[in-house]
Amino acid sequence: MTRCFAVIMAGGSGTRFWPASRAAHPKQFLALGGANESLLQAAVRRLEPLVAPEDVLVVTSERHAGETRSQLPQLPAANVLAEPTGRNTAPCVGWAAAHVRRRDPDAVMAVLPADPHITDEAAYVDTLKRAIDAAASGAIVTVGVQPTRPETGYGYVQRGPAVGGGVHRVARFVEKPNRETAEEFLKSGDFFWNSGMFFFKASVVLDEMRKQLPSLADFFERCDAAALCGQEQEQALVQAEYATLTSISIDHGVMEKAENILMVPGDFGWYDIGSWTSAWELAARDAQGNAVLGEAVVLDSRNCYVRGGAEKLIALIGVEDLVVVDTGDALLIMPRERAQDVRDVVAELKASRRDRYL
Amino acid sequence: MTRCFAVIMAGGSGTRFWPASRAAHPKQFLALGGANESLLQAAVRRLEPLVAPEDVLVVTSERHAGETRSQLPQLPAANVLAEPTGRNTAPCVGWAAAHVRRRDPDAVMAVLPADPHITDEAAYVDTLKRAIDAAASGAIVTVGVQPTRPETGYGYVQRGPAVGGGVHRVARFVEKPNRETAEEFLKSGDFFWNSGMFFFKASVVLDEMRKQLPSLADFFERCDAAALCGQEQEQALVQAEYATLTSISIDHGVMEKAENILMVPGDFGWYDIGSWTSAWELAARDAQGNAVLGEAVVLDSRNCYVRGGAEKLIALIGVEDLVVVDTGDALLIMPRERAQDVRDVVAELKASRRDRYL
Repeated sequence: MTRCFAVIMAGGSGTRFWPASRAAHPKQFLALGGANESLLQAAVRRLEPLVAPEDVLVVTSERHAGETRSQLPQLPAANVLAEPTGRNTAPCVGWAAAHVRRRDPDAVMAVLPADPHITDEAAYVDTLKRAIDAAASGAIVTVGVQPTRPETGYGYVQRGPAVGGGVHRVARFVEKPNRETAEEFLKSGDFFWNSGMFFFKASVVLDEMRKQLPSLADFFERCDAAALCGQEQEQALVQAEYATLTSISIDHGVMEKAENILMVPGDFGWYDIGSWTSAWELAARDAQGNAVLGEAVVLDSRNCYVRGGAEKLIALIGVEDLVVVDTGDALLIMPRERAQDVRDVVAELKASRRDRYL
Repeated sequence: MTRCFAVIMAGGSGTRFWPASRAAHPKQFLALGGANESLLQAAVRRLEPLVAPEDVLVVTSERHAGETRSQLPQLPAANVLAEPTGRNTAPCVGWAAAHVRRRDPDAVMAVLPADPHITDEAAYVDTLKRAIDAAASGAIVTVGVQPTRPETGYGYVQRGPAVGGGVHRVARFVEKPNRETAEEFLKSGDFFWNSGMFFFKASVVLDEMRKQLPSLADFFERCDAAALCGQEQEQALVQAEYATLTSISIDHGVMEKAENILMVPGDFGWYDIGSWTSAWELAARDAQGNAVLGEAVVLDSRNCYVRGGAEKLIALIGVEDLVVVDTGDALLIMPRERAQDVRDVVAELKASRRDRYL
């Protein structure tokens, strides 16, 4: 099989998981998928059948590089690329592509978000294998996730003609639809969720950037030159200029105008854990529907999500559909259906300058 | 005015205030009345116009003597009498009476529970003055609290003929009534809540015990003899024999058979804070009915009782009528109407031997 690098984009902030997620400890570092591993650790572990640890790169912010390295001790420290500031995904992917091209100009790279939870990991690995093989021929490949509901919160990708081996052409990318359109998409069977995963040779995506985003391509070539003198030189260049790069997503900046994009449809239990509600949905629950992490006494209560810390006892009596998240210094209590409003708490904390809780 | 000693009975356990109340930190040590002082501290402070600090005795268990002394630094340490084991109130009152008689054989003593919350402190002091004066003539006096509802959780005292100065004879003491009887009591206007407060000269109550509970009276005389050799000698005797004393309440053991008991009716906002529900009722509440102790962000929530600790932020979104009590190592969440069921949590913790949360 083609040598494949993985580039995991781990730049999240995740205020919707306050108080577990904080500015210094965003969503990807949290164990939200039910197992005792963070989303980021799960993202790397799932790749074991496909990518050697020394070929896994993680792009994250400077602030989170330390925790990223300590959560992923199996990765060489240099594989964690630290952005001084977020400039959306195109600079992030391009910088990682420059790294990959230096190490192996012929290798494929898989660009993967750190956040999604996957329930059928075997099917996931199969899907990725197909996508990697397709990218080895020089194509740009994405994975479209089989939709299970008329979701209006995701972008979609429309399937075009099959090209063999479970691979199709992409007819087009579509922005988040309204409800009516989402229902038509679901009915048609030709529309898939845009997973945010991309597969290409590093040289292919850098060639595309040369055409579409030439100032970015210039910057990455200067990175290559600096890197000849050592990683410190490259990091100094990034430090000095990253904030000036064009801030644009890989979708808008590259994919929309690229030709011959392929897609591999996949159905592997893909969940964007977007709120405490989805954390409850994915967690192991008892006969009363309660998901309890930590020590608890739960009396006469149903369908609650309880997340405590070590050395803390949480007692519930006679409550239903509550989310309870305790982190020692902060505690959140709300009905499950109000999970989107966690952002209002974070906004209030910001407004009142209570930074230590952010 | 007659010299008056106060004897505060502070033997509570208070599982209904878990997790704030613990075996090592029962109800009387908690600030439940809304102010920043414990019930015990408030009980002593209220007496300032009537009793000098060196004349206030507190009877508590050995286990709680240390915290009692540290909550009441204005009291001489020797004024905190430590029972090796609880034997109900008659031994407790008798032992304290022996102490008072040694110090001033002619003084009155006011026996007061540590727990009640009083909202009208001036009226309380006036009532106590009347009761103390009546006791100075050699009578046994109690205070009957003007009832405000047909309460079935308290004992009652029926008012007899007036004897002048706002003092009446007691017609009889009545056990907790059923609902129907409680409603008749309220309608009649002659029945008052038994406040558990008693006033008498130390010699008077000890003479009654000599008649009705002679083995107790013997023991207190031996305490007097031991005390001649010092408080250590007395404490050693108590240590050796207290557990063998008759366990009986002052109500059943002395009051029921005593003659000529007087009562002073009082109306001073007397609250037996029996559960977190009553703590909410007494607490300062905002326009949405929320009572918040500690740092909080409360969004779209009503009629909640929130009690956090220092350095902890509690965020509520969209909840109503909840009790939330966080003590760092334990957290309780329940609807206000379930406050009585806190005991079930404590029972569950006992059954599962999670002693550190008890």
